[in-house]
Formats: sequence, structure tokens, C-alpha cells
Amino acid sequence: ARPRVGYFYVGKPMGEVIADQLRKMKVKDYKSVPVVVSEGTSVYDAIVTMFLEDVGTLFVVRDQAVLAGVVSRKDLLKVAIGAQDVREVPVGLAMTRMPNIIVVTPEENVYEAATKLIDYQIDALPVVRVMDAHNKQLEVVGRFTKTTIARIFVELGSGRDI
Amino acid sequence: ARPRVGYFYVGKPMGEVIADQLRKMKVKDYKSVPVVVSEGTSVYDAIVTMFLEDVGTLFVVRDQAVLAGVVSRKDLLKVAIGAQDVREVPVGLAMTRMPNIIVVTPEENVYEAATKLIDYQIDALPVVRVMDAHNKQLEVVGRFTKTTIARIFVELGSGRDI
Repeated sequence: ARPRVGYFYVGKPMGEVIADQLRKMKVKDYKSVPVVVSEGTSVYDAIVTMFLEDVGTLFVVRDQAVLAGVVSRKDLLKVAIGAQDVREVPVGLAMTRMPNIIVVTPEENVYEAATKLIDYQIDALPVVRVMDAHNKQLEVVGRFTKTTIARIFVELGSGRDI
Repeated sequence: ARPRVGYFYVGKPMGEVIADQLRKMKVKDYKSVPVVVSEGTSVYDAIVTMFLEDVGTLFVVRDQAVLAGVVSRKDLLKVAIGAQDVREVPVGLAMTRMPNIIVVTPEENVYEAATKLIDYQIDALPVVRVMDAHNKQLEVVGRFTKTTIARIFVELGSGRDI
């Protein structure tokens, strides 16, 4: 008998079936819009931007889109309970700076992105495109976070065909 | 011929196969240890506890384990940039309070837990056991967060048999 459309034989253990699926899903298809500030932005204004945009991580850029740093709620909280005035301290002093930033490219898969989030214990990855390989300049084109993973997880669990 | 051990026929679309799998995975098998403080803890000490324990959400309890509130980095950041002294303000003034807390039980599945995180736009759920249905008292027995989801995601993507 011919198999019914949409039904198929899977000659693999369940673990491999799911792993294959996650490796087919690309970061570019799930990333969100990045929220960026410039290096001179005060810690206070960065916190306000986080609240207004409802994100947990900001990307710090030069020339509109060149990645310079990443700043998390945790980084800002550290400054906020310190002795300095959050309106005076620039976000550039609180951020993790290039080249110590873990990034992901649009062509990587969501499993690779999730692995980076777990291995480096971070909440968000800037999605980047290499602008200038020689100077290692990276253009920020998106945001991939633990929330993105949770959203994909819910989509997978909803049972919609993929 | 007998099927090889570990290999099987799946008479379902891929989407359903994955959805079934996620519904089999229980919160109790993936939850982390909860990090708790009492209601009188200062916002400053709560922030320090967050850093020391490396978590993004604290559960506020009475009598060691009875859930009274939940406080996130975002809640604490709000107080930290306000006019009040973080060493004077108790965490009870910054937290989300019962009965407005979204919880999960150990017997719920990880898909249900992920759905709550996304639908209510929160980072963490207290895993609770009902102590007293009449008074709606809940005992905190664990923590289920977006990081938990990301960890499960990496485990699924590693292709280990499940």
C-alpha cells in the first residue's frame, strides 16, 4: 500500500530525529530585532531603554550597527548598586567589549545558538554579519535569546507540522 | 524480520512526534533548586544573593518554603534606579505577590511550563506543591526557567536517545 501523504517511515532513534530537525532550523528564521545603544549612552538611559523595549540585553554599537559591546541586566544592576551615579557612567564602562563577545551568524542553526547560550552562560547572542574580515568588524543584524529558544520550544510542542 | 532495538516505525507527521516527546518530559525531572529569600530582605541583599547564586529570579518565602512572592532582575533594577535607598527597601515592596504568581507543578510537562513562560512573558516559574488547598498555600520545591528550556533544547539537539 502507498504510504499516506504526510506520514513516513523514520529509520532512526527518536533522539536523532529531533536532533536532525533542530539542525535544519536556521537562526535567520527565528532571530528578533536587535535593540542597540551607543557607547556614550548613560547606564540610566540604557536601563530605561531596556524597560521601554522590554529586552534583557542591549547591543552597544558604533556607526549605527558595528558591534562594540553587549550589556545585560546583570551588568547594569552591578553599576546601579555601586557608588557611582548611573546618570554619569557611560554604558561603555559596564559592557562586555569586543573581541570578548560570543556571537552567532544567520546561517548557524538554532541548536548551535542554544549551545552557545548554555556553554557561555549568557542570555542573548547578537546575530552578526562579517563586514570586514580583516578588521573583524561585525554588523549587528539580529538578536537570539533564551526567549527565542522558549518560543521555538512552544512551537515544536504545539505539534504543528514542520 | 524483527525490528532492530532502538529503531521503530513512526506513523505520524514529524511535528506530532516531537510534540508527543515534549509532553512526556515532566517538570520534576528538569527543575533546578530554588533560591529563596524572606520578605524582609533588603533589595540590596536580594541583588547580592542573585549575584552569588547566579540566578535571575528569587522566590520570596514565609516559614522557609511557603511562596509569598517572586522578584526578578527587572523588578530590582527598577528600585535600584529609583529615589529610594536599596539598603532600606525590603524586597517585599518590589516583588510580584501571591495570588498573582504564575506557577507550575512537578507533574506538569515541559511544554506546558514553556507555554506559561512565553504567554506571561516571565523568565522563571516557581515549581510548587499545594500544602493547603483551602488557604491556597504553596510550597516552593523548585525553579523552572528559560535557562532550563535552553538546557533541554541542547539535550534534544545532541541526539542522545530519549
